[in-house]
This record gives sequence, C-alpha cells and structure tokens, in this order.
Amino acid sequence: MSMATATELETRIDIPLCSREPMIDLLNQQLADTFDLYSQIKQAHWNVKGMKFMSLHVLFDDLAANFDRYADDIAERATALGGLARGTARLAATNSQIDELPIEMTDGKEFVVAMADRFAAYGASSRAAIKRAEDENDAVTADLFTEITREVNKSLYFLESHLQG
Amino acid sequence: MSMATATELETRIDIPLCSREPMIDLLNQQLADTFDLYSQIKQAHWNVKGMKFMSLHVLFDDLAANFDRYADDIAERATALGGLARGTARLAATNSQIDELPIEMTDGKEFVVAMADRFAAYGASSRAAIKRAEDENDAVTADLFTEITREVNKSLYFLESHLQG
Amino acid sequence: MSMATATELETRIDIPLCSREPMIDLLNQQLADTFDLYSQIKQAHWNVKGMKFMSLHVLFDDLAANFDRYADDIAERATALGGLARGTARLAATNSQIDELPIEMTDGKEFVVAMADRFAAYGASSRAAIKRAEDENDAVTADLFTEITREVNKSLYFLESHLQG
Amino acid sequence: MSMATATELETRIDIPLCSREPMIDLLNQQLADTFDLYSQIKQAHWNVKGMKFMSLHVLFDDLAANFDRYADDIAERATALGGLARGTARLAATNSQIDELPIEMTDGKEFVVAMADRFAAYGASSRAAIKRAEDENDAVTADLFTEITREVNKSLYFLESHLQG
Amino acid sequence: MSMATATELETRIDIPLCSREPMIDLLNQQLADTFDLYSQIKQAHWNVKGMKFMSLHVLFDDLAANFDRYADDIAERATALGGLARGTARLAATNSQIDELPIEMTDGKEFVVAMADRFAAYGASSRAAIKRAEDENDAVTADLFTEITREVNKSLYFLESHLQG
Amino acid sequence: MSMATATELETRIDIPLCSREPMIDLLNQQLADTFDLYSQIKQAHWNVKGMKFMSLHVLFDDLAANFDRYADDIAERATALGGLARGTARLAATNSQIDELPIEMTDGKEFVVAMADRFAAYGASSRAAIKRAEDENDAVTADLFTEITREVNKSLYFLESHLQG
Amino acid sequence: MSMATATELETRIDIPLCSREPMIDLLNQQLADTFDLYSQIKQAHWNVKGMKFMSLHVLFDDLAANFDRYADDIAERATALGGLARGTARLAATNSQIDELPIEMTDGKEFVVAMADRFAAYGASSRAAIKRAEDENDAVTADLFTEITREVNKSLYFLESHLQG
Amino acid sequence: MSMATATELETRIDIPLCSREPMIDLLNQQLADTFDLYSQIKQAHWNVKGMKFMSLHVLFDDLAANFDRYADDIAERATALGGLARGTARLAATNSQIDELPIEMTDGKEFVVAMADRFAAYGASSRAAIKRAEDENDAVTADLFTEITREVNKSLYFLESHLQG
Amino acid sequence: MSMATATELETRIDIPLCSREPMIDLLNQQLADTFDLYSQIKQAHWNVKGMKFMSLHVLFDDLAANFDRYADDIAERATALGGLARGTARLAATNSQIDELPIEMTDGKEFVVAMADRFAAYGASSRAAIKRAEDENDAVTADLFTEITREVNKSLYFLESHLQG
Amino acid sequence: MSMATATELETRIDIPLCSREPMIDLLNQQLADTFDLYSQIKQAHWNVKGMKFMSLHVLFDDLAANFDRYADDIAERATALGGLARGTARLAATNSQIDELPIEMTDGKEFVVAMADRFAAYGASSRAAIKRAEDENDAVTADLFTEITREVNKSLYFLESHLQG
Amino acid sequence: MSMATATELETRIDIPLCSREPMIDLLNQQLADTFDLYSQIKQAHWNVKGMKFMSLHVLFDDLAANFDRYADDIAERATALGGLARGTARLAATNSQIDELPIEMTDGKEFVVAMADRFAAYGASSRAAIKRAEDENDAVTADLFTEITREVNKSLYFLESHLQG
Amino acid sequence: MSMATATELETRIDIPLCSREPMIDLLNQQLADTFDLYSQIKQAHWNVKGMKFMSLHVLFDDLAANFDRYADDIAERATALGGLARGTARLAATNSQIDELPIEMTDGKEFVVAMADRFAAYGASSRAAIKRAEDENDAVTADLFTEITREVNKSLYFLESHLQG
Ligand SMILES: [Fe+3]
Ligand SMILES: [Fe+3]
Ligand SMILES: [Fe+3]
Ligand SMILES: [Fe+3]
Ligand SMILES: [Fe+3]
Ligand SMILES: [Fe+3]
Ligand SMILES: [Fe+3]
Ligand SMILES: [Fe+3]
Ligand SMILES: [Fe+3]
Ligand SMILES: [Fe+3]
Ligand SMILES: [Fe+3]
Ligand SMILES: [Fe+3]
Ligand SMILES: [Fe+3]
Ligand SMILES: [Fe+3]
Ligand SMILES: [Fe+3]
Ligand SMILES: [Fe+3]
Ligand SMILES: [Fe+3]
Ligand SMILES: [Fe+3]
Ligand SMILES: [Mg+2]
Ligand SMILES: [Mg+2]
Ligand SMILES: [Mg+2]
Ligand SMILES: [Mg+2]
Ligand SMILES: [Mg+2]
Ligand SMILES: [Mg+2]
Ligand SMILES: [Mg+2]
Ligand SMILES: [Mg+2]
Ligand SMILES: [Mg+2]
Ligand SMILES: [Mg+2]
Ligand SMILES: [Mg+2]
Ligand SMILES: [Mg+2]
Repeated sequence: MSMATATELETRIDIPLCSREPMIDLLNQQLADTFDLYSQIKQAHWNVKGMKFMSLHVLFDDLAANFDRYADDIAERATALGGLARGTARLAATNSQIDELPIEMTDGKEFVVAMADRFAAYGASSRAAIKRAEDENDAVTADLFTEITREVNKSLYFLESHLQG
Repeated sequence: MSMATATELETRIDIPLCSREPMIDLLNQQLADTFDLYSQIKQAHWNVKGMKFMSLHVLFDDLAANFDRYADDIAERATALGGLARGTARLAATNSQIDELPIEMTDGKEFVVAMADRFAAYGASSRAAIKRAEDENDAVTADLFTEITREVNKSLYFLESHLQG
Repeated sequence: MSMATATELETRIDIPLCSREPMIDLLNQQLADTFDLYSQIKQAHWNVKGMKFMSLHVLFDDLAANFDRYADDIAERATALGGLARGTARLAATNSQIDELPIEMTDGKEFVVAMADRFAAYGASSRAAIKRAEDENDAVTADLFTEITREVNKSLYFLESHLQG
Repeated sequence: MSMATATELETRIDIPLCSREPMIDLLNQQLADTFDLYSQIKQAHWNVKGMKFMSLHVLFDDLAANFDRYADDIAERATALGGLARGTARLAATNSQIDELPIEMTDGKEFVVAMADRFAAYGASSRAAIKRAEDENDAVTADLFTEITREVNKSLYFLESHLQG
Repeated sequence: MSMATATELETRIDIPLCSREPMIDLLNQQLADTFDLYSQIKQAHWNVKGMKFMSLHVLFDDLAANFDRYADDIAERATALGGLARGTARLAATNSQIDELPIEMTDGKEFVVAMADRFAAYGASSRAAIKRAEDENDAVTADLFTEITREVNKSLYFLESHLQG
Repeated sequence: MSMATATELETRIDIPLCSREPMIDLLNQQLADTFDLYSQIKQAHWNVKGMKFMSLHVLFDDLAANFDRYADDIAERATALGGLARGTARLAATNSQIDELPIEMTDGKEFVVAMADRFAAYGASSRAAIKRAEDENDAVTADLFTEITREVNKSLYFLESHLQG
Repeated sequence: MSMATATELETRIDIPLCSREPMIDLLNQQLADTFDLYSQIKQAHWNVKGMKFMSLHVLFDDLAANFDRYADDIAERATALGGLARGTARLAATNSQIDELPIEMTDGKEFVVAMADRFAAYGASSRAAIKRAEDENDAVTADLFTEITREVNKSLYFLESHLQG
Repeated sequence: MSMATATELETRIDIPLCSREPMIDLLNQQLADTFDLYSQIKQAHWNVKGMKFMSLHVLFDDLAANFDRYADDIAERATALGGLARGTARLAATNSQIDELPIEMTDGKEFVVAMADRFAAYGASSRAAIKRAEDENDAVTADLFTEITREVNKSLYFLESHLQG
Repeated sequence: MSMATATELETRIDIPLCSREPMIDLLNQQLADTFDLYSQIKQAHWNVKGMKFMSLHVLFDDLAANFDRYADDIAERATALGGLARGTARLAATNSQIDELPIEMTDGKEFVVAMADRFAAYGASSRAAIKRAEDENDAVTADLFTEITREVNKSLYFLESHLQG
Repeated sequence: MSMATATELETRIDIPLCSREPMIDLLNQQLADTFDLYSQIKQAHWNVKGMKFMSLHVLFDDLAANFDRYADDIAERATALGGLARGTARLAATNSQIDELPIEMTDGKEFVVAMADRFAAYGASSRAAIKRAEDENDAVTADLFTEITREVNKSLYFLESHLQG
Repeated sequence: MSMATATELETRIDIPLCSREPMIDLLNQQLADTFDLYSQIKQAHWNVKGMKFMSLHVLFDDLAANFDRYADDIAERATALGGLARGTARLAATNSQIDELPIEMTDGKEFVVAMADRFAAYGASSRAAIKRAEDENDAVTADLFTEITREVNKSLYFLESHLQG
Repeated sequence: MSMATATELETRIDIPLCSREPMIDLLNQQLADTFDLYSQIKQAHWNVKGMKFMSLHVLFDDLAANFDRYADDIAERATALGGLARGTARLAATNSQIDELPIEMTDGKEFVVAMADRFAAYGASSRAAIKRAEDENDAVTADLFTEITREVNKSLYFLESHLQG
C-alpha cells in the first residue's frame, strides 16, 4: 500500500495521480537508502585507518558530498510530484534497504569492499528506478535516476579499482 | 503547414528533412511561449507589492533568468536542425499560447497563482514536446525538453508551496 | 492621455505628481522599445550566417545583455516613481517604436546595418528622454538615460566601425 | 555661519573659496544624516521580529551597507574640497535632521514604515543637494548626490512595495 | 558503561585515558543528536508550505549546512581522542535525544516552533558539554562546544524572532 | 538599574534571567563604545594629513571595518540573550565611555596616539567583559569578548609600533 | 570479435556481461575517433591563416577542449563497465574512422569545411551509439552519448553558419 | 581650425556635425594630456626614492592605472562621435598642455608636489570640458568628464593630504 | 631568568608587567619549537620516498603551512604584549625543544612516526601553555594556544591514523 | 631531409631561414613525442588499478595536463618560426620516439615505472633540444625547452620517489 | 656617450659599474620603443574599421596590455641596476626607433601589416638586447629580454597569420 | 668534500653523477642561506617600529613569502637531481653564510639597511650559482637561479630606494 496520502497529492503538474503515487513511494524509498548510505560513507571517512588514510579520508568525503546532493534532488522531486518527502534519520533507519556497516570497522581495504558492495546495490536499485519511472511515462524522474546511476557507476569504478590489478 | 522553408534546411546533420521540419516548428512554438513567459515573470518581478515583496521580487528574478536561458537553448537547437529561429517580441506576442497577465496585477499571492497556472501550462507543453521529439527519433531535442521540464516542474513546486500548507 | 492611473501614483518620493506622470509614461515607452530591441538582437545572435559568424554571434549576445539590463533599470525607475511597469512581450510588441527585423535575414553585414539603424534610433529617443527628464527637474531619471545613451552611443560606434574603413 | 574655517580651505582645486565653503557645510550636514540613518537601519536589522524576520533582517543589512558607502563618499568629497569631514557619532547625533527611532520598536511592518518615512526625507534632502551643488557650479558634487538619490529612490520603492498592493 | 572500548584508545595525545573515555562518549552522544537534527532541518526544508515558503526553505537549508559541519567537527574530535566515531543513520536514530518531527507537518510557523524547541534543547546539551569538557581539563573539546553553542544560540535567535514582535 | 525590560527577555535559551539581564546591559554598553570608536576611526581615516597619509588612511579604514563587525556580533549576542540591541548613533553618543576626538585633529602621529589611547581603553573594558561573562557562567559571551580582545590587542600593537623604535 | 577480454570484465555493476562487452567495444571505437578528432582540431588551431585567424584560432581551441572532455568521459564509462580503455595515440591512429586532415591545409574556410564534414560524421556515429546503448538497455551509456551528440550538433551549427548566408 | 576632417565625421549618431566637430577636438586635446600625464605618473612610480618609497610606488601605480582608463574612455568617445582618436606618444608629446617632469627628480615629496600641481591643472581642464560639452548639448560627453573630474579631484585630495597637516 | 628586558615592555595594554614577562618568554619558547617543527615538516615534504609519496608529500606541505601560520600568530602575540619576538633560524635552532630529524630519513612510514612523535610533544607543550596563560589571567593568549592545540590534535589524528587499523 | 618546405617559411621574424628550418623540424619531432606521451599518461590515468588508485589517477591527470600545454607551446613556436605544426594523432603515432605502453598494463607500480622511463627519455631529448637551439642562436626556443625540461625533471622526481625509499 | 650619470649608479648590486652603464642605456632605449609601440597599438585599437572590427579591436587591446607590462619590467630593471628610468611620453617620442603610424589609417588589414612590421623590428632589437646583456654577463637582463622576445615572436605569428593562407 | 652520498644519487635523469654532485651541494648551500634569510625577514616583519611600521611590516611579509617559495624550489631541484634536501632549521643555522641579525633591532631604517646588505649578499651568491650551473651544463638549475636572482635584484631595488633620494 502506498505511503502517499490523498491530501498531499493536489498539484497543477500534468501527471495523473495514478502515476504520481507510485513515483512518490519510489522516491521516498530511494531517499531512505541515499540518506543511510550518506551516513555510512561519513562513518568510513571518520574511522578509516592505515597508510592509505589520507586518500581514503578525502575520497569518502567527496563521495558523501555526492549522496547529500542526491538526497536533496530526490526529495525535491517527490515534493514536485505533490508528495511529502520522508527524510528524517529515524525514517531512513527504518526504511533503508542498505546493510548496516559493521561498527568496529577501521581497515581501509575492508571499508572499500563494504562501500563497493553498497554502491553496487544502490546503483542497481537506482537503475531499476529509471525503468519504473519510464513505465509511468515520467521522463523527468527517469532522467534524475539516470544522472544518479551514471555518477554512482563511476564511483563504483573508483572503488573497485582499489581492489583490482 | 510548416513555417520552415526548404531553403533554410540544408545542413550536414544526420537527421532526415521530414523529421527536422516538425521539430523546427515545435521548437519555434516553444520559443514563443518561453519568451512571452520570460517577459511576464519580469512583469511580476517589477510590480509585485506587499509584505512578501522582497522574497517574491528575488524569486521572480531567478525564475526569469531560467527562461532567458531556455529561450537561448531552444532557439539554438532550432538553428542546429537547419531552421530559422523566430524570436522577436512581435513574433512571441503573435504566436504565444500563454495567457496574457492582467496588467494591473500587483498582489503577491495573485502573482504566485498566475505564475503557477502558467508554469503548469508551460510544463505540460514542454513534456508533450519530449514525446514528439522521441516520435521523430530526435533524442537530443527530447533531452533538451526533458531538462527544461525538470526545472519547470521544480519551479512549479516552489510556486505552489506558497499556496499550500 | 497618460497610461498612469491615479491609484498607482501614491508614494513618499519628493517629486510632484504632475512630474511623475509624464516620466512614468516616458519610461514605459522606452521600456517597450528596449525590450523589443533586446529580442531583435537575440534574433540576430541566433540567425546570423557567414565567415564572421563567431564574432558577430558573440557581439550580438553582449549587446543583448546590455539591453536586458537597461529594461530592468528603466522599469524599476518607473516603479520608483509610483508607476506600474508595463513590460510584457505583448505590450512591447504593441507599443514599440522600433521597426521589426525582416524575418528571413541571415547575412552578417545586413544584420550589422539593421542594428546600426535601430541603435541610432534608440540612442536618439534615449537622448531626447534626458532632456524631457531635465524639463521635469527629475535629475535622477535624466542620469539614468544619460548612462544608457552613453553605452548605446559606444555600441553604435562598434557597429558602425564594421561598416567603415 | 559656516563651520568651515579659513585654515582648512587651502587646496589646488579649481573651485573658488566662496563655492567650496557652502558645499563643505552641505556635505557635512548630509554626512550627519547619513551616519545617523546608517545606525538606525542597523537598529532595525538587529531588533526586527515576526514571521518576515529573515527577509527584513537581510534587507536592512543590505540597505545599511549602502549608507556606510554614502558616508565615505560624502566625507571624502568634503575633504577633496579642502574641508574637514565632521563624522563622529557625537557630531552625527547632534546635527542629524533625521528623527530618532522609537527605541522599543520590534514589529516588521512598523520598521518598514519608519524606514520608508526616513528614506523619503533623506532622498528629499539629497535631491535638494543636487540643486544646491549645481547653483555653485560644482558638477562633481551634484553628480555624487544624483547617484545617491537614485539609489535611495530605488530603496524607497523596495520599502514602499512592502506596504502596498 | 562507556561505549568506548580499550582497543580503540591508544594514541600519543597528552590526555589521560580516564578523561578521554567520557569525552568520547559525550562526543558520540552529541554526534547522534547533531545528525538527527540535521535530518529534521532538511525535512523542514523540503516540506514547508505557505506564503513564507521561499525564505524558510532557504533558511532551513543554511541551518542544515551548519549541522552537517558540526557533525564532522564533533566526530573528528572523538577520533582525535582515540575513539571510534559512531555516526551511521541507524546509530543516530537509536541514540538521539531529540524528539522526532511530526511527519505530516507542513505549516511554516509550526516548523519554526518545532525547530526553535529542538535548537533550544540542542543548545542546552551543547552548553552542558562545555562544562563537562572543562571538568575533564579538556580545553580543546570545551572550545569546540563553545563555538557550536555560540552559533546555535544565534540560530535560535533567528528562529525565535519569527515568533515574536 | 538594568536597561533590560521584563518583556523583552522571554526566550528558550538555557541561561537564567538573572544572568541574561546583566549580560544584555554589558553588551549594550560595549555596543555604544564600539559604535562610537568606529565613527572616530573613520574620522581619522578622512582627516589625517602628512607624508604618511596613504598608509594611515588605509590602516584606519581596515581598523574601522573590524569595529563595524564587532558591533554586529555584540548586538546580535544581546538579541540572542533575549535583549533589545540599543544601537543608534544618538544612543552611542549618549552612552559611550570613549573620549571624543579633538575635532580639528589632522596630524598623523597625533591620530595614532589618540587611537592607541582609545584602543587601550576599549581593550581593557573588553577584557573586563570576559571576566564578567565568566562570572555569569556565560561561556559564549566570554568567547565573543575574548575574540574581540585578541584582535584589539593586535591592533594596539600595530598602532603603538608606529610610536616606538 | 570483441576486443574486450574475459579477465577484464569482472565488476559488481548490475549489467550482464553480454551487454557490457559490446558497449566496451563501442566506447573504445568512439574513444579512438574522439582522440583523433581532438588532435585534428588542434592542428587547425595551430595552422589556420587569413584575416579570420583570431576568431578561428580561438573557436578551434574551444572545440578541442570539448573533445578532450568527451574522451575522458567515454574512456571512464568503458572502465566503469569493467573494460580497459584503449586510448594511446597509436591506438587512435590505427582505429579511428575519421579521415586524416590534408597536412598542408592553412586556409580558414577550408578548415571550417573540413571540420564541418568531420563533426557531421562524428555526430552521426555518436547518435548511432545512443541507439546501440538503448538496445543493450544501458540507459547510462545512452545518456552520455546523448549529451555528446547534443554538443556536437551545436558545434556543427557554429561551423556551418560560417559557410552559409 | 579643427583637426577633424569632413570624411571622418559620417555616422548615424543624433548629434549635428557642428557640435561633434568641437567635441572631437576637445576630446583629442584631453587625450593628449591624459596620455602624457599617465606617462609622468609611471615615471614617478619608477624613480621615487626615500623612506616612503613603498607606499608612493604603489600609490603612483594606482593613479596611473586610472589615467590609462581615462585615455581609453576619452578616445572611444571621440570615435563614437565619428572622429579619429589621435593617441600616439608622438602626438601626445606634441599636443600635451601638461608641463614635462624634471627628469632627474627622485625625491618623494617633490614628486607629490609635482603630481599635485599637474592633477590640479588636469582637473581644471577636465571641469572646463564638462561646461563646453553642456554648451554643445552633449550630455553624454559631459557625463564622461564629470566622472573623470570626480576621480581626479579625489586623487588630488590624496596627494595634497601628504603635504598638509 | 626572563629573556624579556625592561625596555621592551612599555605598552598601553591592560596586563601588568609581572604577567606579561612570563607570557613573552613562553611565547618565544613556543615560537622556537614552532619554527623548528615547520622546517622539519618541510624536510619530510622534500625527502619522503615510496609508493605513498604523493599523498604524504601533499599532507606534509599542508601541515607545514599550518605551522608557518602558528609562528606568525605566536610572534605577534609576543609583540602585542610588549615583547620582542625572537624568531631567527639560529634562535630556533638553539632554543627548540623538539628533537632533530635523522637527516637521512626517506621512508614514508618512518616520517609519519617521527612526525606523530613530534606533534604529540608539541601538542603537549601547547596545551600546557593554555594552562600557564590562564594562571596569568591572560585569556587571549590562552585562546590562541587553545586554537593551536585543537588543530595540532587533529593533525596528530591524521598522522596516527596512518599507523593504525 | 627537412620536412619544412620553402613556401611555409616566409615571415618577418629576424632569424635566418637556415636556422629556422632545423628548429621547425626539431619542434615537430618534440611535438610528436609530447602528444604521444600525453595520450599514454591518460591511458595510465584511466586503467590504473590497486589500493593507490586514487592518488595515481589524480597524479596522472595532472601530469597529462602539463603535456597538453607543452604541445600547444611547442606547436605555436614552430608556427612562430614560419613552419607548419604537424600535430595530428596519426603524425604523432608515426613519428614518436617514445615506446608504446603495453596495452594490458593495470598495475600501479608498473605504470609508475613505465612513466618514469618515458619521462626520463623525454627529459633527455628536451634537454638536448636546448643545446641545439642555442647552437642555432635561437635563445627563445632554448628558453621554451629549458622551461619544459625543468618541469619534466620535477615530474620525474615525483614519479621516481614512488619507487625509492 | 651614456645617458646614465655617475650619481645615479650607487647600489649594492654585484654587477660592476662598467657593465651596468651600458645595460641602463640599453634598457632605456627599449623603454622608449616599448612605450611608443604601446601607444601605437592603442591607436589601432581605437581607429580600426571594417567587418573584422570586433576581433581586431580586442586583439589590439590584448597586445597593448602586454607592452604596458614590458615597459614596467624594463623600467624597473633599469632602476634595479642603479639607473634612472626615462619613461615620459616626450622622452619616448624623442628617442623611439619605431616608425610613427600614418595618422589617418583605419583599414584593418593595413593596421595588421603596420603592426607586423613594427613587431618584427621590435622583436629584432629585443633579441639583439639578449646578446648584449649576455656580453655584459648580465644573465638577469638577458632573461628579461628572452621572455619579451618569446612573447613578441608569438604575437608576430598571430599578426602574420592574418596576412597569409 | 661533497655532502651528497653515493646512495642518494640514483635516478633516471640524464645528467652525469659528476655534475649532479656539485649541483646538489650548491643547492643545499643556497637552501641554508634562503631559509635563514626567510627567518630574518620575518624577524624584521615582527619587530620593526616607527611611523613607517605599517608599510614595512607589509613589505617584509611579502619579501618573506618570496623566500619561502625559493626554498621550496631550490630543495625540490636538489631532490630532482637525486640528492637529499638538507632543510631543517638546525642545518640552516649551522650552514648559512648570511650574518645573523642584531637581535634587539627595532628601527625601521636599520632593518632596511640590514636587509639591503643581506639581499645584496644573497643576490651575489645566487648570481654566482647561475655561472656554476652553466659550467656543469645544467641549464635547468641555471634557469632557476636566474629567476631567483631577478626577483632578488628587484627586491634590493625596493629596499635601497628607501635609503636614497
Ligand atoms: Fe534543497
Ligand atoms: Fe530589483
Ligand atoms: Fe546563445
Ligand atoms: Fe530587477
Ligand atoms: Fe574611505
Ligand atoms: Fe531547494
Ligand atoms: Fe571531515
Ligand atoms: Fe579613501
Ligand atoms: Fe548582522
Ligand atoms: Fe579523467
Ligand atoms: Fe613595482
Ligand atoms: Fe578600449
Ligand atoms: Fe604576520
Ligand atoms: Fe577520473
Ligand atoms: Fe594554443
Ligand atoms: Fe611597476
Ligand atoms: Fe601582521
Ligand atoms: Fe614543495
Ligand atoms: Mg538529462
Ligand atoms: Mg535576459
Ligand atoms: Mg560599516
Ligand atoms: Mg553619472
Ligand atoms: Mg551534508
Ligand atoms: Mg575558539
Ligand atoms: Mg574563541
Ligand atoms: Mg542527459
Ligand atoms: Mg596601461
Ligand atoms: Mg587536453
Ligand atoms: Mg626562462
Ligand atoms: Mg627565465
């Protein structure tokens, strides 16, 4: 059942209610994942140890900044479709589909593996979201998820490159 | 009948004439609407009154700047397809599908309502243009209208948010 | 008969109503011309052809940006005097004293000639406006038109220099 | 009697002593008003309350910055004419022609009204100063007051717009 | 019992273990509150409605940016003291002492009240943290909390000013 | 007797009324001195004469800019504590504890001596304010005065260095 | 036969191997063309002669900068899909589908014609690449080629405009 | 006799030939003085000696930059009026009304006196030019000389302040 | 015995001589250590070898820049208190309490260990200096050392993180 | 035999033809090497793998940017001497004296070794070019190669430092 | 006979008087040429006509800015060697070896030819100056002229490119 | 005997060991002098007194910044040649050839004389280093010392100008 209530969906936008409802739910699900993963990347930024500290500390900070931006774009697409954005930490913690980070992790390579796993999962749900938006004929939401997927794929390449060669 | 004449359509671009002609007409129609709406937002920027003056004066200026940019991008896609851009004020006044603003309007909320109505209409024709570009297999023109629709949808959310809650 | 209505003229500014009314009408006339000419320079920016394309495309864009700024300054002087700014595309199309551009024009030199003719006409009405503002003892409006005339005279020199030598 | 003493008036500037003396007195009078009004706008910036707090807090800060600049330009014109600038807080407090702000004022609209009243008075004395400078054939001082009057008129339009519509 | 484990506390810093342990726990508690409140301010940024939309939307975004910075500074003081930063969304959701926002809230004034209440609570725990750091002779941690308290007090003044006057 | 009235002191901040009242009075006293000294430094900036003109003219302008910033920070701490800021020129003139500048002063060295005397007095009252804020357990106000004292001490070193060696 | 070897294709990305292989080959083909054309535009930048030297010299430099950027984006999409980027000058020389520039060319108009021909060819293969990416359900690669095609179409309009009118 | 020849005076500008001729001569006279004085200020910048070296070296460089700008503005007003600008070093040397600098001068105070004398003379001819432009009803040229006179008067105040007090 | 001589201690600052003397000695001791450590970090910046070269080369440069700034702040606090700053390389070499770097060191990890040891020692003496300044009731000097200690503690966390995990 | 033809060598530059011919050939040889090495560094930038990925990815990008600049400077010195620049990818591939990179290389250290070898070879031919330019009395070309050699020597130190210690 | 007098040549620089004298004379000769050519390029900037107006107007302005910089560097090398810089317009007019521009010139191509001729002559004397400085073992002056020659050679290539192809 | 050890001299650079050894020693000698002089200029920056305080305080800071940059360039040329940079404060103190500053110096003119003496000595050893680098056929090291000598000569002119005239 959709989390979106009838009262929140009145708007002049030219997309029918039956398309907007599932899009809003989809966007709020991605918002929860985005915000959760944002916090996990910061966790890695703060706690990573080892001789690669400096470059990983900076890399994680840059990646986190991207997710902060995705969250804002996703949430404001939900509101543009007439929905409520559901973006508090407690909502993210409850709804996120991303695995929690092992809290004692400090090793650089372990963090890179953990992040690569999570970016792959996030990239997959983001790519699936493109498809679902196209199925609802919502080319704009599709475009937003395409943009995010493209960046996340590139970030995954950065992360995985540390683990190969 | 298309406004585009045969002589203006010679170019090396790899899109057949039969697709370029309707695209050029479509782009010139959107150009007229864009330029007209640009002028109306400035009208609101200049004449709005009331205790919200400052934030609406600034908001309308920012929104107008966006439409000035859309006009340039739309016109230069028309020329890239071998067409003439048809962009003078008189052409915009003749061809625009946007309703004229009541000329004595000064109330802030009335301006926000009027703008929300016009942004909704413009967003709908812009989204329709995505579809028509895809039907002509012109992915680039479709991408341009997707970008514009995305921003216009967000601006509509900004405007409508003033009227809700 | 003045377009300025009684209701729109209440303000604390220390210029008598009998001076403000003709100034507001004058400013709105110049606003119509400014906005129309702005659109015509963009028309040239988009459609110019020939081996001088690049430098004329850039030159017309710079000149257009100036007129966009003049429009804002003129309109906000009209409002500062207690008037309504009358600045939509339809109003500009109706009231402009500038000749329309021949719509099929693409030749660089023809555009420069057409622009030189229109800048000369605009510069002349702008200089006349200085005089009329001084006659109403409105030194501030006179200063605004002096500034605009100075820039327009310089732009005319730029344009005419292409046609001489 | 002029505040300007003989000893302070020796300079190479090509304006006769009989013109410089009244100009220096005029500039010092406007300096007192400017500095006093600067402090009052800051007072409004600090103490305004109500749901429009944020936009008024910012607006008053921007307006205050303008008056800080006017004070510097006015004072340095007085010194350029061979005079002493008389610009301490105590001198401003003694000589200012601007009404003191009611010290317990916190309401946003009341502040806007109070500022509009004071900007109108200041704009009027500034415009009068243009005339007096022209009477002394001091085109440069006239130009300075024209510039200030133009900005103050526009700021008055910003303030009054809050109270209309 | 302290969350800080023995293994995580080896460092060359000249503060004894018995002082570092309570400081790390304190910093992690403030981190949870900071991150939670950061997410709530974004929630307000996204969902606020009403004629003050624009200025509140911007105000909440600026305030959120501050809390994002506090989180980084607090977490990195915990790591500087030899601790683990505990900063994921799930940890924040579990440990935060800040009340959750009513999730359907959209009214501007209600959001300002809710934020003022939460900033007051956060400012109080932040000020208490200064004291506790001083009790442990950790002048640096005290300085960090002093800085944060100072900004949060000022932000509270911004928020409360909307509700007074 | 405190200038702070009961009505102005309601706020959510976690400092008791009995501490906030004397702090607000103290802050308003320092505000008067700050604003007065700001105006005196500008007076020096404008009227200084002699072969060191240029470097003193610039030095006094830089020092004045600092005091303009102190005034803003002090006033907004008073409002953050629930007080009214009392910051008009007339209030500064009435309440300032700083000696007025001899109005005919133009000599560079005399100005430096006069400024050094006033900066020393201001630095002393600012340092005393740190202590009084600590006595009220208001670490934030103490931190503000510490910051100001630090800069003023450094400025005094700049000034005194001109007079030594 | 695909240039992509099995060993280079292991990655967490959610696109099946059978789609990634042809995409990597396609991207490497476009990379060769991009890098070759980049070098040819620089060749034009360096060797162009005639009275339009300055504007063509600058135009070619700007266009070259775009192709340097396309090369980076294309190569890093190939690596993101698990492939090797094949980007040395010798590989570009061997694999490019773009005709070599006549090496003694110096005439401005001849360079513009030669560039227009090559941009048209490149734009066509870039547009074809959008389609092939969509056929493999790789919306991200399609988006990248859409972006590039859009810019290249606009650059072609700039180039062709020199030859028309 | 006017230096302006008939052939150089054709232009669309709305000022009659009988006014443009004397304005062009006047502008070319001021151009010669401006360029000559520019070179003299650089001479001072390079050769000044004494314990005030650094601040005078910088001051003269700033003042020279102003005159370089005046030259450009004056010359381009002459061309805007249909004239030739006459701006080579040899023309400046022949036509300048400014006294040559004693070539062995190195003393700081002597340079300041020499510059003050020359700025006073230049300011006087610049102010006279305002009047002559007004007599020809050329408000734009008058405005240009007003602006220059204003700055030169302020620079004279800077210079003279070194010699007083 | 204090290095500060009686003659150097005359100043208007409101701190008694008996407090200023030990503060000046303390500041000069820290200045020697700061300058010495600055040079050692540069030594590491230049001579570090190994696969982490690039990130350590950059990290050491950033850390060195901080110490250059500390030196300036410490020295100018000594002069603000009426003292001489004693800051030549020979004085630093003689008075520094920091161990000299083994001059043939090139290994990255060894440099990180050496720097961590020295930053810990420097951080400890800096924290002790806070206490000694507070004992002399010199809150401003205490504030300076608090700021430095905070940054140095964070830098130590950066360095130690390379050695852990 | 020289690649430079007689027709391309006419210019006003004061260097005899017999010197310009060998310089142009030398510059075109260095251009081929530069462009080839530029492409190889990008190849490393794209394909490097391993835990040092991020810092090597960035390092190679910075080094590549330098070579792009060298190519431009070298080519434009050849044209300044009256020659044709010979700068297409195919020409670089044919004429380069740099060894091709093994195309399957991904290991970070192997890339650093390969780059160090190639930078050493390039630096040697660049230094030899200084000598040859001096032998032709072309101090300007010598200065260009000196500048490049200096940077390439420093880059080699960066690369080799990764392999030592 | 040298223009440099004995009295002006006392300095601590480690170059013998017998070398400094001819260098100062050489530098003053180049200063005269530089300043004269600077003025001629501005003359071209102002008076050029024809359809290439805009790009030549901008090109000449950029070239002029270079010569303004050369003049400053040359003059300050003369003073660094203990000489007087001889840089007024009258001195430049008397001593320059550059041919005067025909004063009625307005044609774009004629200006380019005239400038190419003059840049070639200037480049030749600048290159000769390198040699003369080396003969006096003044490597620094040689380096300055090498730098200037390099830029002037490149500018000549820009100019000549307009006349070829 | 050379300080450079055999083990530190392995590198791919194309300069023979017999040339690199003396260059490394020379560079380390200049590094010691540079770093020592850097510290002495800061000493002057901090302790200078008198009415020229401000301009000398700033001048010395600018000059010190140059020497900080020279040290970095010199040290990194030594490492580029395969050497160890020997750059700690203790090494500088031991090896510097620059005279120590009298530690009680505060007078502005005395500082300028002391600095002029030291800059002259430093400039002489720097110029000698050009020659020695050329004797080893190391054009790059020669170029570095030429650049430094040029700046130091200009700085000496700034300093000496204070003492002349
Ligand atoms: Fe947002
Ligand atoms: Fe506005
Ligand atoms: Fe455009
Ligand atoms: Fe506006
Ligand atoms: Fe000022
Ligand atoms: Fe937003
Ligand atoms: Fe961080
Ligand atoms: Fe000033
Ligand atoms: Fe403020
Ligand atoms: Fe890249
Ligand atoms: Fe200089
Ligand atoms: Fe110009
Ligand atoms: Fe400093
Ligand atoms: Fe990358
Ligand atoms: Fe180039
Ligand atoms: Fe200079
Ligand atoms: Fe300082
Ligand atoms: Fe470095
Ligand atoms: Mg898109
Ligand atoms: Mg616009
Ligand atoms: Mg201020
Ligand atoms: Mg004006
Ligand atoms: Mg964030
Ligand atoms: Mg602090
Ligand atoms: Mg503090
Ligand atoms: Mg896209
Ligand atoms: Mg100049
Ligand atoms: Mg490139
Ligand atoms: Mg060089
Ligand atoms: Mg050089």
